[in-house]
Amino acid sequence: MRILTLLFCLLISNATNAQDEKTLRSLYDVALTESEAYKNLRDLCKNIGARLSGSEEADSAVVWGLNTLADLGLDTVYLQEITVPHWERGRREKAYFYNEKGKNMLDVCALGGSVATGMNQFIKGKVIEVQSLEQVNLLPDSIVKGKVVFYNRPMDPKKISTFSAYGSCVDQRYSGAIEAAKKGAIAIIVRSMNVRNDDFPHTGSMGYEAGADSIPAFAISTNGADYLSENIKSFKGLELSLKSYCKTYPDKISYNVIGELRGTKYPTEYITVGGHLDSWDLGEGAHDDGAGIVQSIEVLHLFKVLNIKPKHTIRVVLFMNEENGNRGGLSYAENASEKNEKHLMALESDRGGFSPRGFSVNGSQKQFNAIKKWAPLFEPYGIYEFKMGFAGVDINPLKDDKICLIGLSPDSQRYFDHHHSDNDVFEEVNKRELELGAASMASIVYLIDKYWLY
Amino acid sequence: MRILTLLFCLLISNATNAQDEKTLRSLYDVALTESEAYKNLRDLCKNIGARLSGSEEADSAVVWGLNTLADLGLDTVYLQEITVPHWERGRREKAYFYNEKGKNMLDVCALGGSVATGMNQFIKGKVIEVQSLEQVNLLPDSIVKGKVVFYNRPMDPKKISTFSAYGSCVDQRYSGAIEAAKKGAIAIIVRSMNVRNDDFPHTGSMGYEAGADSIPAFAISTNGADYLSENIKSFKGLELSLKSYCKTYPDKISYNVIGELRGTKYPTEYITVGGHLDSWDLGEGAHDDGAGIVQSIEVLHLFKVLNIKPKHTIRVVLFMNEENGNRGGLSYAENASEKNEKHLMALESDRGGFSPRGFSVNGSQKQFNAIKKWAPLFEPYGIYEFKMGFAGVDINPLKDDKICLIGLSPDSQRYFDHHHSDNDVFEEVNKRELELGAASMASIVYLIDKYWLY
Repeated sequence: MRILTLLFCLLISNATNAQDEKTLRSLYDVALTESEAYKNLRDLCKNIGARLSGSEEADSAVVWGLNTLADLGLDTVYLQEITVPHWERGRREKAYFYNEKGKNMLDVCALGGSVATGMNQFIKGKVIEVQSLEQVNLLPDSIVKGKVVFYNRPMDPKKISTFSAYGSCVDQRYSGAIEAAKKGAIAIIVRSMNVRNDDFPHTGSMGYEAGADSIPAFAISTNGADYLSENIKSFKGLELSLKSYCKTYPDKISYNVIGELRGTKYPTEYITVGGHLDSWDLGEGAHDDGAGIVQSIEVLHLFKVLNIKPKHTIRVVLFMNEENGNRGGLSYAENASEKNEKHLMALESDRGGFSPRGFSVNGSQKQFNAIKKWAPLFEPYGIYEFKMGFAGVDINPLKDDKICLIGLSPDSQRYFDHHHSDNDVFEEVNKRELELGAASMASIVYLIDKYWLY
Repeated sequence: MRILTLLFCLLISNATNAQDEKTLRSLYDVALTESEAYKNLRDLCKNIGARLSGSEEADSAVVWGLNTLADLGLDTVYLQEITVPHWERGRREKAYFYNEKGKNMLDVCALGGSVATGMNQFIKGKVIEVQSLEQVNLLPDSIVKGKVVFYNRPMDPKKISTFSAYGSCVDQRYSGAIEAAKKGAIAIIVRSMNVRNDDFPHTGSMGYEAGADSIPAFAISTNGADYLSENIKSFKGLELSLKSYCKTYPDKISYNVIGELRGTKYPTEYITVGGHLDSWDLGEGAHDDGAGIVQSIEVLHLFKVLNIKPKHTIRVVLFMNEENGNRGGLSYAENASEKNEKHLMALESDRGGFSPRGFSVNGSQKQFNAIKKWAPLFEPYGIYEFKMGFAGVDINPLKDDKICLIGLSPDSQRYFDHHHSDNDVFEEVNKRELELGAASMASIVYLIDKYWLY
């Protein structure tokens, strides 16, 4: 049998059969009736809540993950030590401007990793509204110097995948402060990465250039951005006042939490299933990525309930620090490489707990074709989209010429309504949608385990 | 060209081409950027709200529909008179029981069309919990007489389509009172048609048998049903007290609201697009069926914006009285038949304003095959499910051997969280999902108009 090992990811030809149909049906049935995913999500969101790397809540989440995996009766549960950045928001930020009607408060929050405006101090400056990094680049220093740069390019509503709209917009948040600082700006404020018009500011990671000026960076709600933009047009010389309290502390020790169901035939060959345990500090990290965490745990719960004994070792990994560093994902891959571990496939859920629609496959064309052959098995569950594409931040460092990375693709329409904001709470996750996602993940793991060869 | 008329629903062979791809892209683009659907839905839900047939709000909705269609600059806008039933809930219902802990209030509401318990009077009786109509049939009169029958069969969570779960459960609501009355029950209480566990009672239509006893009928929330069931088991001789104030009044005059964009080539051949304007009296009728109403209107708005001049006449019909009589749908079909109108296709949206996933086609196999050939055009928009099946209550009476009925199929997972309850409000509809549905409807109308022959 192992002669075939060199035939990279060969699939047994008759991939789908009646037994597979039956097993998938059981996985979905059990997920929709006996799943612990929703209960676990409530627990994680309501009893711990937001859990940014380095926070006490992140520590609690590690303990929670360890206990939750231990309760499954797996073969091994352990921690993988990593160091993580430690940034704290402190008190909630303030922003306002004056116009002819008086003082106008704006909904803002500091971007993750930002420096503060200074202890008990407002930064005040005139505002330049721009649509892109390139536009800032083109402006002379004399125009930008001493001002607040307001990045206001919206996510493109015409893109059907909101992730695609996000991808072509988020450079403002990542690199906005770097470009503005080069020209002497005193702060930046970025339109929140949200397609919807509402009052929630959305945080998220950002960078500074080593050795260059670090200026405070804020997100403003989409409604706030529109309002500010209107006022800039109608009220000449508008000055914006901004205050933040955030601070970066020394790195801390934290952990990936790992549980294994040992393979009966190839115990040293691995299938990794995961999401990220950390979240931003706003909301409760329900869709991002509490959903992925409890779905990943649920994969093994479903295997346990149905007494499915995988041939390869299934590893659930609750990655730490996806949001601001990906230290968990990087360490996990490093570790796997050092130990020369054989990894068949890694699956990630980090696109929210919405109705699953398909899978995004980051692998060879051959691997993709093999997976696409399983599509008919998934049709009864409304899973139609098998596409090649990015699979997930946490598992991405595992990529080599053998492993196939897969991301669960839920319906994306509502994702950015919640992403990185106070609005990402347990109540916004639908139990059935979460469970259907978990069953879809378990199904693809079951099929890979059964048919895939390293 | 008209030689082909007798070749029923023949399709020009090369159905999809680059022009079609471009037109669909434009329809989706405009829907996602310039749609009036969401604004119209807010107006209908917030300024009128619930609009049960026969209510003042239903009258206001007719005026609203007329004005909204008139604003589109169509060729004709008119009313089609019908008579509708007129039932009013009156004050909100009450239900409680006593156990060892004291008085326990339950979340209930009268089913639509129910008689009241009597003026200022509670009905009080012991409870028999059953799972089906058949079970009641099998019970001797002596056991049922003088009691309250509690139908508690839940919707099956294992069914992936919640509409399928609803279909196999709703007989308890429709016919529960009839079967229980035959055995001498004094009232019935039915577990709400909701897969989720929550505190909202869900109303809906029910029947009595002519000449037989009419007994009061209630819905109880899913949490309430579980709680009541537990208490029946643990507290012997539990007595339930129920009070309702509802009343049926004489029929009233009401209207279907119709707007037409006249066909350039075949003005006397029709494509009907619609939803229903009435709603139950709880909530705001946002998903059911405010969404379908504003999406249907949006189809013509999109045609207007893009200057698409249909060959056949497109008729938007805002049907009245789907919820408790379907008098609008029946009258519309009767009228069409009397006038010997040629109807190519009728499209309905009445499954909520969620992410569209496909179409349900009630037509010949040949018609279905022709539509399925267009599937690749819809894939970029996440529309994959083309299935034969029921299309919609309002358009169903139009069915004959020529017309093809089509229903928009959105994601069904959340639909029954909101259906017929206080929870069906504007805030629960996502703007993009609503707009994607409208664009999908406009796209199928565009293709039918272009390629279909009567």
